[in-house]
Amino acid sequence: MPEATPVIALHGGAGTILKSNMTPEREAAYHAALRACLEAGLTVLRSGGTSLDAVTASVMELEDNPLFNAGRGAVYTTDATHEMDAAIMTGATRDCGAISGICGPRHPILAARAVMEKTEHVFLAGDGAKRFCETAGLEMQDAEWFGTEQRLSALKAEMERRQSGAADDGDPARKHGTVGAVALDRFGHLAAATSTGGMTAKTPGRVGDSPVIGAGTWADDATAAISATGHGEYFIRQAVGHEIDARMRWAGQDLATAAGSVVSELDVIGGSGGLISVDAKGNIALPFNSPGMYRAWCGTDGVIHTAIYRD
Amino acid sequence: MPEATPVIALHGGAGTILKSNMTPEREAAYHAALRACLEAGLTVLRSGGTSLDAVTASVMELEDNPLFNAGRGAVYTTDATHEMDAAIMTGATRDCGAISGICGPRHPILAARAVMEKTEHVFLAGDGAKRFCETAGLEMQDAEWFGTEQRLSALKAEMERRQSGAADDGDPARKHGTVGAVALDRFGHLAAATSTGGMTAKTPGRVGDSPVIGAGTWADDATAAISATGHGEYFIRQAVGHEIDARMRWAGQDLATAAGSVVSELDVIGGSGGLISVDAKGNIALPFNSPGMYRAWCGTDGVIHTAIYRD
Repeated sequence: MPEATPVIALHGGAGTILKSNMTPEREAAYHAALRACLEAGLTVLRSGGTSLDAVTASVMELEDNPLFNAGRGAVYTTDATHEMDAAIMTGATRDCGAISGICGPRHPILAARAVMEKTEHVFLAGDGAKRFCETAGLEMQDAEWFGTEQRLSALKAEMERRQSGAADDGDPARKHGTVGAVALDRFGHLAAATSTGGMTAKTPGRVGDSPVIGAGTWADDATAAISATGHGEYFIRQAVGHEIDARMRWAGQDLATAAGSVVSELDVIGGSGGLISVDAKGNIALPFNSPGMYRAWCGTDGVIHTAIYRD
Repeated sequence: MPEATPVIALHGGAGTILKSNMTPEREAAYHAALRACLEAGLTVLRSGGTSLDAVTASVMELEDNPLFNAGRGAVYTTDATHEMDAAIMTGATRDCGAISGICGPRHPILAARAVMEKTEHVFLAGDGAKRFCETAGLEMQDAEWFGTEQRLSALKAEMERRQSGAADDGDPARKHGTVGAVALDRFGHLAAATSTGGMTAKTPGRVGDSPVIGAGTWADDATAAISATGHGEYFIRQAVGHEIDARMRWAGQDLATAAGSVVSELDVIGGSGGLISVDAKGNIALPFNSPGMYRAWCGTDGVIHTAIYRD
């Protein structure tokens, strides 16, 4: 069997990202960050590594970059704390791991991966999950390490808005913010990874779609690897990741049709956001129904692309 | 449109339930409890209530009965604490609510329902979830209220087994234990509810399939309402609830075929357990691959059945 050409895609969140609110400098910073994070995973793939290692590498870079709402730069809850969620899944075996509601590991995606690789469980949450991270030997950081002035300002602004009774302005930094990566390796195996700080001023304890296997994160070599970003509650109700899998598996749809229709249907019920996906042939689909989605990809042609807006 | 004939089914867990380990008295107690819990929901349906209220009523009864691993009688974690999970979903709108890792509300299923009805969220976990329960005015109980001598003995036995390095004996009280109900009301709407204490001697923070929408709990009027019980990690990887939905929706399978094949495939990969399901026509399927599953049902013929073993 010929080796597959490695393919990778990532996202840094979707939302009301408008060119009119951007400066050229900020736009350039996003493009550069997206490229660097993609290259982290691409380097793994091109040196013969697995899709699991590639999506881990890309998401670690995204988590370390305060531009994105995951790891360092995670948004704040109403308690001004961080509660991070992450999940990872490998398409070869459907092995998966997820963590929710923790602030401690520098890289939440490594915590999710440790749940997958070092426990008999799939999903750990809260204090128990944090204790597991400590015993698993993951690098831990204080809460201050994750915070940024920009995210704290976003929290203050949102709390003041709620206090004043003013209408929601649809600010993307509050509404959405997730990072994720999907990849196909030379062995033909798919993997998906997702990591997030959640929503600014979320209720403590709120779990979104990112760590819900079948909603925000899914991978199966027979169909596709998917990582979603958006208004998580809608993505859970639509079982977004597994629904794309089901349409490919049972209705014979191709990836673009399955992923595109699921995102269009989310739009109809008010669920804004998008997703990145790759199938076992190396096809990539990056549908979103919001004005923008931070994204980068490198398909079978080997060319790196980065994009923010619809075109 | 003619009114649908109400239908309801429930489970009290699946596992290595062997007649050789039962006394006639204990068997009779289970049959009586299953019947009483079914009647709680059936009464709601027969007096014109909704499937959502019916599954809530049945699961509340199951939670209050120490014979079952949910609410009072929930199993213990390795810390000798209780961490309960629950989820509820309504097929008419796909509205749903889930909670995870809490010990406080007497009825975890009411906490899940409050998440659905009183928040913009779907899923709350841990301390934040418990605070929400308090502010939502749910009846709260001390940890002692949930404990029973039998569950504490099971924890001690399991901890001693691990200490000694003895092989796992597949004791059902440790491995599985979940309660759930599914129903069809006269309006043609489906609902599903699931509640559990998890696994005896589970790692604190472990989340099983019960609160994972699409895995242990699912409902859509277009297909079916499903509540699962078993080795949760496998049920998450197979997205059991949503996979049954997908086979009915996209492959045109009937409920018995879809539910039966999913449970058979779980068996192949080592995932033991079962599920209860009902479709919009009132068909019921109760497949399980373990020796027994505590279950009760009342189909369109209006006759109440209770069962424990395979036949």
